[in-house]
Amino acid sequence: MSSATATDTSAQMPKPRGLEGIVAASTALSHVFGEEGRLVYRGYEIHELAGRASFEEVAFLLHHGHLPQADELHDFQHRLNARRRLPDGVIQLIHGLPVDTAPMDALRTGISAIGNFLTAEEPDLDEALLLLGMVPSILATFHRYRQGLVPIAPREDLNTAQSYLYQLSGEEPREDHWQPLETYLILLADHGLNASTFTARVIASTGSDICSALTGAIGALKGPLHGGAPSKVLDMLNEIGSAANVESWLTSAMDRGDRLMGFGHRVYKAEDPRAEILRDLARRASDPEFFNLSYTTEQRALEMLEERKPGRRLYTNVEFYSAAVLAAVGLPGDMFTPTFAVARTAGYTAHVLEQVANNRLIRPQSEFVGPTDLHFTPINDR
Amino acid sequence: MSSATATDTSAQMPKPRGLEGIVAASTALSHVFGEEGRLVYRGYEIHELAGRASFEEVAFLLHHGHLPQADELHDFQHRLNARRRLPDGVIQLIHGLPVDTAPMDALRTGISAIGNFLTAEEPDLDEALLLLGMVPSILATFHRYRQGLVPIAPREDLNTAQSYLYQLSGEEPREDHWQPLETYLILLADHGLNASTFTARVIASTGSDICSALTGAIGALKGPLHGGAPSKVLDMLNEIGSAANVESWLTSAMDRGDRLMGFGHRVYKAEDPRAEILRDLARRASDPEFFNLSYTTEQRALEMLEERKPGRRLYTNVEFYSAAVLAAVGLPGDMFTPTFAVARTAGYTAHVLEQVANNRLIRPQSEFVGPTDLHFTPINDR
Repeated sequence: MSSATATDTSAQMPKPRGLEGIVAASTALSHVFGEEGRLVYRGYEIHELAGRASFEEVAFLLHHGHLPQADELHDFQHRLNARRRLPDGVIQLIHGLPVDTAPMDALRTGISAIGNFLTAEEPDLDEALLLLGMVPSILATFHRYRQGLVPIAPREDLNTAQSYLYQLSGEEPREDHWQPLETYLILLADHGLNASTFTARVIASTGSDICSALTGAIGALKGPLHGGAPSKVLDMLNEIGSAANVESWLTSAMDRGDRLMGFGHRVYKAEDPRAEILRDLARRASDPEFFNLSYTTEQRALEMLEERKPGRRLYTNVEFYSAAVLAAVGLPGDMFTPTFAVARTAGYTAHVLEQVANNRLIRPQSEFVGPTDLHFTPINDR
Repeated sequence: MSSATATDTSAQMPKPRGLEGIVAASTALSHVFGEEGRLVYRGYEIHELAGRASFEEVAFLLHHGHLPQADELHDFQHRLNARRRLPDGVIQLIHGLPVDTAPMDALRTGISAIGNFLTAEEPDLDEALLLLGMVPSILATFHRYRQGLVPIAPREDLNTAQSYLYQLSGEEPREDHWQPLETYLILLADHGLNASTFTARVIASTGSDICSALTGAIGALKGPLHGGAPSKVLDMLNEIGSAANVESWLTSAMDRGDRLMGFGHRVYKAEDPRAEILRDLARRASDPEFFNLSYTTEQRALEMLEERKPGRRLYTNVEFYSAAVLAAVGLPGDMFTPTFAVARTAGYTAHVLEQVANNRLIRPQSEFVGPTDLHFTPINDR
């Protein structure tokens, strides 16, 4: 019997390198300078854009390669707003999902359904805008449905951050909510060839449609090793409970060998520049006591990580203060990763367009680690 | 204005290599020996299995690493059959799709919905079986719905090939249909790190669930550069119409520089071993006139490709005779790629399990080809 062979082989398999350091695509969209802790979108450092540009300007920049002139931005915003309203069939389909569906899973099905209801052939700028408009609407529709509430029709006078909050709550968005949310959306809009963006590009490289590419990306983003962790930071902070408990909680967690949420990144070997901006945002937007808990936890964790794992260069990542910021603008924990998806839809769609503009099928090789010369015996002879 | 920079950059971008020849994962599941034209599943040449093993034995082999003993196979078949029935909510959701949805797009939404209705946390063998059972049911349910027909409940006494045909038609499956279909399913069950399998592994590598991984894979498989082409072979053959027209049709197509459907492959530099088996199957299963048209087209195309593109080593690929075989067993052209998905679900699920058993996040690098030092100017100053 060959089972022993196969089982032994998997046990002996070397840990895969996960394409670390391997260049899988060329892009002019964004780049992570991991050693220096810099993030650039289309030539602009993230510090140049966050808090200064609007999310729509950044989305336009990613899609078109340059910052819009006033008339271009007006037209972009107008066309985007005209694409926020979901087809009735998609709303009905969302209303047929189990109410306990995780929002990311509802979003995955909702984006796939957009591809069923609206023509999705060759990806183009118009389809990119359609998804940028509809992703927040899918989430808001599902979030209201699971609370027993009817969907709120989008209003044409709101920007993305405002519209998302309005469609979630039905209330006029507060400036102290939508402004930090808008900065968050800018910070998370793109990030090189992360696993979900890479998924979108692999799918697009087969000549498939933009909804297939984004559906796949959402499925990847929800994974806890990728975008699925920010609510776990909130869980951790809630478990710690107060600044006074930080020392003992962290000591126990580290003694147990638990992985701390919100620290470390595959590419950054310096502080993630987004963490710095989010920390400032959290300082202003959060409840002071919660900010103090977050900040005390962060500072003590960094010291302890350096003491216990010297040289590992584990820094605060984007997830740590995302939790504080998104909680401060009124979002529940299970909407954190979906809100990440609202932002990243700008990047996903831009990457799909870039992939198809200069396409080659992404089809790597595998290393085969099994036997090759077994002979079939009919079942009764085994 | 920076638009010129970005546009110029995309125009200058070198054609990406699409990870050609780069090892992205280790696998003991299957391997394509491209130079020799060999395909191995878990140690067994495809010729050892096709027409000798059942599809369920092959799926078991991929999932478990060894051919089943009689009691293992009995148990596997029993558990598989118990998982063919879709949740009512998924049937209703399929019945809410537009009737002109492409079946692959319906399948993508259907698999995503399985993840909404059934617990999908850590991928395991049970979830792998669930998808193996439900993928044909989703397709059959949608195919009947678009014809205005009610779904057929699965029967527990049928194997996968039989059950798929039965659920599509409501009729007792004919042996001269299900047997060639079963061989087709075996041939297409796995194929190294093709783009859709790679998509599934990238998604699974984030710690995401098996339905997310398969939803992404289906979105990749439908692309015309991957699995989306077999019905185009049928279109081409129908356009040629008869063996007498082959010479003039091919000459015109090649003079125009059209790409011929069903020839060439990224990895094979010899005849695809599946093409040989499918040719024999087509010879036996197809209408003799249609087989003659297919065979004449293939032989003349191979000669002309060698004359016009000497040394390119373009051989018949798996798609060419898939068209004849799937048409012969009674499937319409737009169900060819979905039927490929039925087969490949065995491979996708096995790859997801292998990925999570020895996981590392798949997160490549990108090469940045844009500027890095632009300065933001507020919109009114642009």
